[in-house]
Amino acid sequence: MTNFRKKEIYLMKIAICQANPIIGDIKGNSEKILEGYKNAINDGADLVVFPELFLCGYPPLDLVEKKEFRESVSKATQEIASKTTSVGLLFGTITEDYEDRIGTNVYNSAALCYDGKIQFVQNKTLIPNYDVFDEVRYFESAKEINLHSFKGEKLGISICEDIWNDADYWKHRRYTVDPIRKQVDDGATMLINISASPYAYGKRKERFEMLSVLTKNDKIPLAYVCCVGAQTELIFDGGSMCFNGYGELCLLGKSFQEDYFIFDTAQKYSSIIKVEAIFEEEALNALIMGVKDYGIKTGFKKALVGLSGGIDSALVVYIAVKAFGSENVHAVLMPSQYSSEGSISDSEKLITNLGISHNKISIQPVFEGALRILKPAFNSLPENITEENLQSRIRGLYLMALSNKFNYLLCTTGNKSEMATGYATLYGDMCGALAVIGDVYKTQVYKIVEYINRNSEIIPQEIIDKAPSAELKPNQTDQDSLPPYDLLDRILKMYLEEQKEYNEIVAEIKEPEIVKRVLRMVDMNEFKRKQSAPVLRISTKAFGYGRRYPIVQGWRK
Amino acid sequence: MTNFRKKEIYLMKIAICQANPIIGDIKGNSEKILEGYKNAINDGADLVVFPELFLCGYPPLDLVEKKEFRESVSKATQEIASKTTSVGLLFGTITEDYEDRIGTNVYNSAALCYDGKIQFVQNKTLIPNYDVFDEVRYFESAKEINLHSFKGEKLGISICEDIWNDADYWKHRRYTVDPIRKQVDDGATMLINISASPYAYGKRKERFEMLSVLTKNDKIPLAYVCCVGAQTELIFDGGSMCFNGYGELCLLGKSFQEDYFIFDTAQKYSSIIKVEAIFEEEALNALIMGVKDYGIKTGFKKALVGLSGGIDSALVVYIAVKAFGSENVHAVLMPSQYSSEGSISDSEKLITNLGISHNKISIQPVFEGALRILKPAFNSLPENITEENLQSRIRGLYLMALSNKFNYLLCTTGNKSEMATGYATLYGDMCGALAVIGDVYKTQVYKIVEYINRNSEIIPQEIIDKAPSAELKPNQTDQDSLPPYDLLDRILKMYLEEQKEYNEIVAEIKEPEIVKRVLRMVDMNEFKRKQSAPVLRISTKAFGYGRRYPIVQGWRK
Repeated sequence: MTNFRKKEIYLMKIAICQANPIIGDIKGNSEKILEGYKNAINDGADLVVFPELFLCGYPPLDLVEKKEFRESVSKATQEIASKTTSVGLLFGTITEDYEDRIGTNVYNSAALCYDGKIQFVQNKTLIPNYDVFDEVRYFESAKEINLHSFKGEKLGISICEDIWNDADYWKHRRYTVDPIRKQVDDGATMLINISASPYAYGKRKERFEMLSVLTKNDKIPLAYVCCVGAQTELIFDGGSMCFNGYGELCLLGKSFQEDYFIFDTAQKYSSIIKVEAIFEEEALNALIMGVKDYGIKTGFKKALVGLSGGIDSALVVYIAVKAFGSENVHAVLMPSQYSSEGSISDSEKLITNLGISHNKISIQPVFEGALRILKPAFNSLPENITEENLQSRIRGLYLMALSNKFNYLLCTTGNKSEMATGYATLYGDMCGALAVIGDVYKTQVYKIVEYINRNSEIIPQEIIDKAPSAELKPNQTDQDSLPPYDLLDRILKMYLEEQKEYNEIVAEIKEPEIVKRVLRMVDMNEFKRKQSAPVLRISTKAFGYGRRYPIVQGWRK
Repeated sequence: MTNFRKKEIYLMKIAICQANPIIGDIKGNSEKILEGYKNAINDGADLVVFPELFLCGYPPLDLVEKKEFRESVSKATQEIASKTTSVGLLFGTITEDYEDRIGTNVYNSAALCYDGKIQFVQNKTLIPNYDVFDEVRYFESAKEINLHSFKGEKLGISICEDIWNDADYWKHRRYTVDPIRKQVDDGATMLINISASPYAYGKRKERFEMLSVLTKNDKIPLAYVCCVGAQTELIFDGGSMCFNGYGELCLLGKSFQEDYFIFDTAQKYSSIIKVEAIFEEEALNALIMGVKDYGIKTGFKKALVGLSGGIDSALVVYIAVKAFGSENVHAVLMPSQYSSEGSISDSEKLITNLGISHNKISIQPVFEGALRILKPAFNSLPENITEENLQSRIRGLYLMALSNKFNYLLCTTGNKSEMATGYATLYGDMCGALAVIGDVYKTQVYKIVEYINRNSEIIPQEIIDKAPSAELKPNQTDQDSLPPYDLLDRILKMYLEEQKEYNEIVAEIKEPEIVKRVLRMVDMNEFKRKQSAPVLRISTKAFGYGRRYPIVQGWRK
């Protein structure tokens, strides 16, 4: 807490450009930067700020290892700089140290440009390498942390993780260095952090609390500029934040959409306290953006969902409609001999409510045909899971055929409880380009659906009320194979998100046999998840990129 | 080059235990350590050495983040130590620094035990975080690099990557620190490196050359102790190496199998120069071990392969037979209207040559049944890729049904050229638990098959001679959709393994349009590979774990 100073009036207009880049689309992202810069100049900004690695999109992953890619980013950075006036333009880019011969020599950088040139570069110091982050793979840590004097302020510029190591806030710190501490000690009068912070429910509140403590203690205003949009499985929620030097939040960017606003440090703002909505609302908006961006960024204009009559596919088709519009969503009903009458009529009601097109295609003839021709090979062995999977896979066959024929984005409908326990058929109901609710527990699916129905019944009550069933054999329900969902989800949440282990979970749940069984199901189904569609991430620990377990292993065997 | 010394006679018998752990099977791996230790004592060893992280298996991935897991490893380490006599036992394990409060405080360690205790621990200094390595995610770098005096020698103990940063050998170094240099400067008289170095063809030669330079320059003998075995996609080839203080290789562990031998530093050995076999032999042995270990470590005892009549599935079924024995391999022939007569008779000949069981199950009735019932939904649109994929997916349906019914390990048959270009059907021919030749280019498949046939015709010549075809429409050949395989594979190798980019490739290949098309195919098919089975890795850059590209991206769009 040394050496700080407090100015009563700050005199800078900072344009916060909370934009949505496409990874690798350097030309498109450049244009976004220059367009935002032009608009902000018209609005009288002194400094225009874009998020972390905005020029190449975040996370660029192994594209960073391509020399031509880095050169292209470097060239675009120079070109953008050459177009600047006296108004500052700060954005995230990649830089290289061509002198150094040890290590990658590649940096995750913030480039400050004005008067036609790159005037100052601050590289990222703290390089995250946990969960979904692999940045040590690509980037070296900054060799220097400096301030830059600009229009009467001493700017302390940092990048994302740099601001996540405040000794006043964190009990357990990841790094020994604190770049912000250094900038404050060196006399920074204005902090700017450009960020790409992936969404999980609760994360925005955490950012808010952490940054409040930091700005309050350090008595320096902060512009925290976030990107927005979905990048395959990763969702960036936006929610850029501007704090005054009293730890008060002055301005908050929109959630799950692009935003642009001016932070005038001379102006008085009323303090914002509420930074997040209820889980149901946020999760829904996150998933809608996830589906929408996948479509926009890959070129898919229409979506396809297989409706089982259950609540999961009902939620997914609702999300698809919100992302693509009802005229661009197609549903398929694929009954079999085991389908209850309700599963069809309930789905038809949902289809009517949503105003989407559909086909009804029985799997029965193909199922029977397949059983007939496989019979000799089956060698009179008794029926088992094989016949159940076969039905699910014929549904997958139909869905993929329609997806191929009409260029539909096939939305996978499995929830997190199913993906965790392996209660899903590989190449069957797991087919699809994007696992829309693969990070949403079954009990959360119910909550979100109730939220959707809060004003009127969009998802038919019958779908909500019925016992969950795969309908792959007579009178089957999920609870024949799985513990009750409220118990299951509690165990899963402790195991997956809270990183608790068997003993800790049993201490709380008191059901050692069930806990053991659930943990074993999770561990043994890594092979299925390896082959799953990318899962839209809305929790602190989603299946996919940020969770890496060996498929072949003997822990707890 | 300071401060070295050269002893004429070294007096230590080091037992090299090149063993095969199961990841997470702490109990089983402990038993292996204690059994090896006991045997080595009987053989008069002074020091018994097991590879990197042997106690928990390598790579343990996110298991390391589990507290109960780390505690279990720690407990097992203590238990093993408590059983030691005056003979040293050195093995790889995980340790923690409970005092420190910043970072993970977890280390990848070498524990030297004797007289009932852990006597010395050297943590790993250089933490690899590229390609298939994510170790910064879990492990911190050693805070100290020390020697340990044992039986008259000053042991310089290091772990894998620690020895891969020799300034005399590497033009481009990854790290500024060289732990081995420090140990040599501090007066080490014997170097021991415990390792888990994943296989790629050429890697063993590289290790040999690098370690020769190091031991020759430093004039100190080295025991380089490797693990062996396959861990899902990663293959560890063994090939432990013992060098004298003149840079000569004295002893070389077996390839692709467990090995155990004593390095007697007082003994004179003749120098070994040849450390690797030809590509065909090595690749074949690597893949056989990959399939075999997947079976042993997961409990699969029988394998299933769909035979198309082509060379890829022929190679895969041969590998399966070598891994599981002919009595445990089952083949399925799944003809359609587009199958050439040869594709059946050639497969039958192969089945006879290998002495395996088989079924022949036509896909035609189910294909026709599916087309009939999908017809209304297809809305009179013309035939396209949909109908081709449908056939491939019905084959997948059959294979998975048999796999489920008989508990067969389904081997995926796609090669690297196909996986690279997306010339494969998701949920069709991509079905399976393990992509056996997913890291083998088509041109390499031919070479390996020729090698298999070097003494007698095991794989029928007709299969080798025919033009590659998916046989999904009349008179189709691969070259309708792909450039000739020799050209394609050259482009792919430059792009994938040599990390060359468009301009560099065109400079060599002079076919800008073809190169552009191929690179685009690779980039655009990330979504398929995301959902592929794990690929056995035999090259420096395999699909899967070590290659990470965004699915949704606009680079080179």
